[in-house]
Amino acid sequence: MKTDIEIAQSANMKNITEVAKKLNLSEDDIELYGKYKCKISLDVFKKNQKNGNLILVTAINPTPAGEGKSTVTIGLGDALRRLDKQSIIALREPSLGPVFGIKGGAAGGGYAQVVPMEDINLHFTGDMHAITAANNLLAAAIDNHIHQGNKLRIDSRRIIFKRVMDMNDRALRNIVVGMGGKVNGFLREDGFMITVASEIMAILCLADSLMDLKKRMGNILIGYNLDGAPVYCKDLKVEGAMSLLMKDAIKPNLVQTLENTPAIIHGGPFANIAHGCNSLIATKMSLKLADYVVTEAGFGADLGAEKFLDIKCRFGNLKPDCVVVVATIRALKHHGGIEKTDLNKSNVEALSKGIENLEKHIENIKKYNVPVVVAINKFITDSHEEIKYIKDFCSNIGVKVALTEVWEKGGEGGIELANSVVETLENKKSNFKPLYDEKLTIKEKMNIIAREIYGADGVSYTASAEKQINEINRLSLDKMPICVAKTQYSLSDDPSLLAKPKGFNITVKEVRVSSGAGFIVVLTGNIMTMPGLPKVPAAENMDILDDGTIVGLF
Amino acid sequence: MKTDIEIAQSANMKNITEVAKKLNLSEDDIELYGKYKCKISLDVFKKNQKNGNLILVTAINPTPAGEGKSTVTIGLGDALRRLDKQSIIALREPSLGPVFGIKGGAAGGGYAQVVPMEDINLHFTGDMHAITAANNLLAAAIDNHIHQGNKLRIDSRRIIFKRVMDMNDRALRNIVVGMGGKVNGFLREDGFMITVASEIMAILCLADSLMDLKKRMGNILIGYNLDGAPVYCKDLKVEGAMSLLMKDAIKPNLVQTLENTPAIIHGGPFANIAHGCNSLIATKMSLKLADYVVTEAGFGADLGAEKFLDIKCRFGNLKPDCVVVVATIRALKHHGGIEKTDLNKSNVEALSKGIENLEKHIENIKKYNVPVVVAINKFITDSHEEIKYIKDFCSNIGVKVALTEVWEKGGEGGIELANSVVETLENKKSNFKPLYDEKLTIKEKMNIIAREIYGADGVSYTASAEKQINEINRLSLDKMPICVAKTQYSLSDDPSLLAKPKGFNITVKEVRVSSGAGFIVVLTGNIMTMPGLPKVPAAENMDILDDGTIVGLF
Repeated sequence: MKTDIEIAQSANMKNITEVAKKLNLSEDDIELYGKYKCKISLDVFKKNQKNGNLILVTAINPTPAGEGKSTVTIGLGDALRRLDKQSIIALREPSLGPVFGIKGGAAGGGYAQVVPMEDINLHFTGDMHAITAANNLLAAAIDNHIHQGNKLRIDSRRIIFKRVMDMNDRALRNIVVGMGGKVNGFLREDGFMITVASEIMAILCLADSLMDLKKRMGNILIGYNLDGAPVYCKDLKVEGAMSLLMKDAIKPNLVQTLENTPAIIHGGPFANIAHGCNSLIATKMSLKLADYVVTEAGFGADLGAEKFLDIKCRFGNLKPDCVVVVATIRALKHHGGIEKTDLNKSNVEALSKGIENLEKHIENIKKYNVPVVVAINKFITDSHEEIKYIKDFCSNIGVKVALTEVWEKGGEGGIELANSVVETLENKKSNFKPLYDEKLTIKEKMNIIAREIYGADGVSYTASAEKQINEINRLSLDKMPICVAKTQYSLSDDPSLLAKPKGFNITVKEVRVSSGAGFIVVLTGNIMTMPGLPKVPAAENMDILDDGTIVGLF
Repeated sequence: MKTDIEIAQSANMKNITEVAKKLNLSEDDIELYGKYKCKISLDVFKKNQKNGNLILVTAINPTPAGEGKSTVTIGLGDALRRLDKQSIIALREPSLGPVFGIKGGAAGGGYAQVVPMEDINLHFTGDMHAITAANNLLAAAIDNHIHQGNKLRIDSRRIIFKRVMDMNDRALRNIVVGMGGKVNGFLREDGFMITVASEIMAILCLADSLMDLKKRMGNILIGYNLDGAPVYCKDLKVEGAMSLLMKDAIKPNLVQTLENTPAIIHGGPFANIAHGCNSLIATKMSLKLADYVVTEAGFGADLGAEKFLDIKCRFGNLKPDCVVVVATIRALKHHGGIEKTDLNKSNVEALSKGIENLEKHIENIKKYNVPVVVAINKFITDSHEEIKYIKDFCSNIGVKVALTEVWEKGGEGGIELANSVVETLENKKSNFKPLYDEKLTIKEKMNIIAREIYGADGVSYTASAEKQINEINRLSLDKMPICVAKTQYSLSDDPSLLAKPKGFNITVKEVRVSSGAGFIVVLTGNIMTMPGLPKVPAAENMDILDDGTIVGLF
């Protein structure tokens, strides 16, 4: 059995100019980064007015093993090309830091991968580094402003904007800066987040132009002054320089799948404190460049699809045409109460219990008036009875279901799904509308999400969350969509409640505002924004040999 | 009068593939980064065995205004092309951080610039970011190792390897990391340096292959264990992953001058705690690609040329063919005791005093058996008498002198210098040898540099420097070249002693070892390795407009 990197390294990659030609992009439309990567000029938006179909791939609440959402996204794109459909894939950029931790790199898996895998997982085209630099320029400007006389009277106890680094480095989570006396500035507590957690990443993924990016960066709330009044990035006058740093990062990156299907990989915000999908510009550009755009959103549909639909589609005026919900029979049996060790045994009863999780996600998507297709990512252990059960179930509720084997077979393994998606697009019309009106109060909006999507009875708030909501109301920043940070493993905020929990409340522990990105982050637990390295970091097994062979990126 | 960026923006740039063709590089030899930048494959070394002439541009001890060394380097390269000579320029990469501080960016000046100026000053091809990532991976691995049980028994009080960021951020100079209890690791003091101060930058600039880079990174001394034994990077097993991060950064970057002369810009280590010149690989590759390689070294000749000749040439087995010493009449009058406000007035007497500084640098270069040419960077205020004086002076000591006006006139303004250099190369043979034997003791080596180059009577050491030398001897790391950190404004270690100071001692305050880079850093004062931002950072005036126009990078 070949590893992912072995498969990737034996790929028959085409020169990226040839891949670009499939999208009718000329050499003037692209900027090469080596032979297999390029950035696409934003001028492309001026040329083409028609839009393709937008297909979102999401999933049931995952098990820790993952349900293969990225793999299905890539395989579906490849399968559509095999059906002679002009498809493109839009994905998130992986972050460098986690590559050296447990993960070791990711860009799909098996025979459904995007390549060049090594470059995508390492520096790629430098977008993450640009975000790091822009973020840390603002951070340096804040401390410098205080050091140089503090004309804005920034309260150094209430600075909320943090520094970032694209590295898993727990020692930087909580630090003291400015030690060593007068020449080094004022002492204060601070901390680093990993780069993808930067609000600038969220902004990059929601902006529709460089000017919009600049404006949104200017609107980042960095803290408060000594009177309690908000201080924004623009008060420090560095949003222009930050935009300069982001001038190339805003352009989508084009690569290809193992089967030479065009894939845009651009932006990758956190899926908890941010909205967890690739950039809006990448999605909008994809719609201009191809007839079928396959994209994905992080975590399960209760988080990923909800944010895609209520935040990204709202901001970008996108109208998704179809949603694919990925599930595995193993994961559904897990939701039905089966232990990991027993998942290999056929168990229709457990499946019939766990399928409530899938059912709920299908119901949820229908609330947005978008047609649904179910994709079952097939495993060798799935029994005929189990497959029959799930097919009958979907048939009864009027939803198409397709088995996929893209990990093993690439696009060939996604033909059934591609046919189901194409038929759905041809026969069912999407009448997309967001779930709630952003002009409602924070609590009203949160209540709708919790009841309608999670199936909760209600929402309770800690005292500090109440205080934070009052603060956001006071700043008149409450009329923005909600971005929930919650466990991905359950529809509820308790990871142990599987399938379709009932009779529970959601507890909001913290409410933050991402005033530049334009959403309100509602946290139901503690979110780690700076990972650490494990006992044996993946980095220890990585190497590059004299002949250029890369090992250890799996 | 146009600003530098206005001149740069109106440049008639050629596609970089055309510039590469001037060097007989095919499209397979290069990797494009957009239309005007590329990296050159290291496989080029396999093709071509002959070497061109190596011309080092250095300077007298500068005044705070600078003597225009980079400008002369670029202008000389352009002028050689105008004489139909196959020339190439090799320069250091600017660092991102200082661009936002006082500097605002730099890539030559006036009509002697390298372009695309904006890209070179911003992320360029990502080399700085790769160094930042590799450095911080090692830093994270150190703290993670301690957190995960500290098998190596690293003494957290004696970790010398620091984190880096490519930003001017004084608040990060001295910090406390690991706050917040058990999950965040152990508390300790730490600090950030700016990226160019990283030992990895010094290593990048001295390595001759990726495997050599890996080996040298493995040899970085990161600190000591609780028994006082040294701990190296390789003990943490991350040098493979670090090399992976550096796989593209090691390839030289090709750009062009305003006059389309090929320019390699690669690597930019500090000129005090490191050796301050572009990468050895860039210089060696330049020698393979052109007949005339014009390169520069940081600061005045006592620091820059000394390190170029004693460290870089020694490691790379380079044989420089000619050294150009840049001076201005204004700066020489300053050395002759004239205040800044009076420099516009003709003053041959002051010039005759200050010229001792130039004379000493010429003498010094001759100690390496390399021919010297003097370049006078001409100002409108230079009088005929002054020019005549300096010409007579050089004639009397048998050294060619040429006036240059490259800032105003580009290559045309460097023709006289180019002719002088070509004649010198044709008529005077270089018999380069380094100044000292690296096998001598640290104090013997330092004594030779101080007496021969600085003109000092001797060297004294503080108690802590003595202790550090004993420590380096104990580790058997003393048989490496010396890298002095000293004021650039004087031949002595006192910036106020101008011209040719006599009767002084050099005081060594600290001695460090850069065991990966392969040199011993001897510090004669406190060196700032993390700059701060000024009261009004250049960043505040930077912007990018809707049409893509960049302003504020001057």
